[in-house]
Amino acid sequence: MRCDFAGQAVKLEVMGEFDLIETYFKRPARRATLGVGDDCALLPPSAGQQLAISCDMLVEGRHFLSTVNPRHLGHKALAVNLSDLAACGAEPKSFLLALALPHIEPEWLASFAQGLWALADQFQCDLVGGDTTRGPLNICITVMGEVPLEKALLRSAAKVGDDIYVSGSLGDARLALEVFRGRLQVTSAIFERARARMEQPSPRVALGLALRGLAHAAADISDGLLGDLQHILKASAVGARIEAHTVAATMSCAEGAGLRWPDQLALSLAGGDDYELVFTAAADQRAAVFAAAGKAQTPVTRIGRITSEPGLYLVDAQGLAMPNTYHSFDHFHAD
Amino acid sequence: MRCDFAGQAVKLEVMGEFDLIETYFKRPARRATLGVGDDCALLPPSAGQQLAISCDMLVEGRHFLSTVNPRHLGHKALAVNLSDLAACGAEPKSFLLALALPHIEPEWLASFAQGLWALADQFQCDLVGGDTTRGPLNICITVMGEVPLEKALLRSAAKVGDDIYVSGSLGDARLALEVFRGRLQVTSAIFERARARMEQPSPRVALGLALRGLAHAAADISDGLLGDLQHILKASAVGARIEAHTVAATMSCAEGAGLRWPDQLALSLAGGDDYELVFTAAADQRAAVFAAAGKAQTPVTRIGRITSEPGLYLVDAQGLAMPNTYHSFDHFHAD
Repeated sequence: MRCDFAGQAVKLEVMGEFDLIETYFKRPARRATLGVGDDCALLPPSAGQQLAISCDMLVEGRHFLSTVNPRHLGHKALAVNLSDLAACGAEPKSFLLALALPHIEPEWLASFAQGLWALADQFQCDLVGGDTTRGPLNICITVMGEVPLEKALLRSAAKVGDDIYVSGSLGDARLALEVFRGRLQVTSAIFERARARMEQPSPRVALGLALRGLAHAAADISDGLLGDLQHILKASAVGARIEAHTVAATMSCAEGAGLRWPDQLALSLAGGDDYELVFTAAADQRAAVFAAAGKAQTPVTRIGRITSEPGLYLVDAQGLAMPNTYHSFDHFHAD
Repeated sequence: MRCDFAGQAVKLEVMGEFDLIETYFKRPARRATLGVGDDCALLPPSAGQQLAISCDMLVEGRHFLSTVNPRHLGHKALAVNLSDLAACGAEPKSFLLALALPHIEPEWLASFAQGLWALADQFQCDLVGGDTTRGPLNICITVMGEVPLEKALLRSAAKVGDDIYVSGSLGDARLALEVFRGRLQVTSAIFERARARMEQPSPRVALGLALRGLAHAAADISDGLLGDLQHILKASAVGARIEAHTVAATMSCAEGAGLRWPDQLALSLAGGDDYELVFTAAADQRAAVFAAAGKAQTPVTRIGRITSEPGLYLVDAQGLAMPNTYHSFDHFHAD
């Protein structure tokens, strides 16, 4: 715990904190020896398993719009963290929730908790502790999972000659954001689909588990494919050749959206907020990769190859080199 | 990871994030299989140990003054978390740092990191991951430690007849805050001592470890002794009789401070921000408790007794019941 020193308001705050935990966030944990309410949560060890742990902080106006449905926000705050576990091939076990709230709105909290619990239940992931305080809206979740020793998918494990794959569809979340901003226009049906991808991403946990022992390197795609792939390339000291048109074709909300091709390329290559996985596997394991993806009920697309030459090179449908102006969002809409 | 969608500023932000981590927060970890930089940190299991985990979020203006020396803030942000491990008798191992910053100030960050690292080194606690983003200043640390199975100190383990102890000195941090607020006046020498207690608390990790197998219940004192003791009483379904004058006498900055007795009582009983431990132990273990405290080089004071009758009762130096008007900060300075 830590003390809060806002003077006369503190009693309400302190009482509020405990009431808040009791009302919205206390449920029996499945596995933890001790759940919400002690100074620490105590988690029993699992033989032969490593603990995988990650935290992500979400700030209003920066990672979500202030108008977002709080149920969707509860979902997303946990989803982006589960996505990190997925990228390591770890199985979700438990999480901590730290929440700064500008004021206590019971309806908002109930809705936020509903979204959070629904996703936590889907992955049997227990809330085992956390912190609440008054302050500018900030959600910091720490998620814990387990992965057998030597089985974690690492950014540093890509090998020359590996195929590179992405899961699902890239660019849809960013399309929704650009519509919100008035920079792109699409039909309301396409907008709603893209918005669901932006606000309620599905962490690819099943795929991460299915790829244990099969994929070499993996990372989750949060800042855009090319940026996140660069982390793998840097950590593995390799390069990559990416078929840009194949990446753009994964975008599920593109059809009928009337997008210009340069926009579709930019959205899918560098849009961000996708929470898909990018991973590599040996070229002779293609059948096994597609079988694993089938088992995980998650589509995957082979988008390129790991090269010994450093750098990230884009090629078009004819195999010709393309200028890579998509490394960052800066170039989005700059054509 | 999670995406950040502040438009054209995003590239700087994303690059800024990675530069920030590299510059200030990347150091080789001692134990983690993987440290800062992958999607998750991977921690190997330790045979026979439970993982103790806790997180605390600190918000500017609420848990620290905006004028605080960033080195002290780096210290305190980790210290309040280590205090939670101490309260469970857990040994610190590693931590995650999530940091929202309104802007990147190299000097501020260097100083913050210096305070953080100094305390982390003292307890051999590794930074193994985290998150940085732009936003209203918010520091959320998740700390991990280990405690042998069945050896954790729990809030729920107090027994009728137990002695109740506190470590160190209570009320000094709150004294400093009240001086900052202009509500109390003390000499500058006393203010500086009290301010050091407020800004750079010493987590009682050594004491927590020494109390394993000896203390029954324990909690850290962050919201004021009486409030935090109530958590033990509630969780253990017992009551307590507390010698108020003995508690007030622990306050190290009281001597020569010219405090009125009611203020000294209020500061020490309900001041908060102390990061001392309150714990209980069997009455026939007094010698062992003081021996353990000596081994941990941490003074402890016996302040009362656990009773079967529910409720928290204060008695004065004559053993007479006192009205308990100190449950919360509301009553501070209300006499």
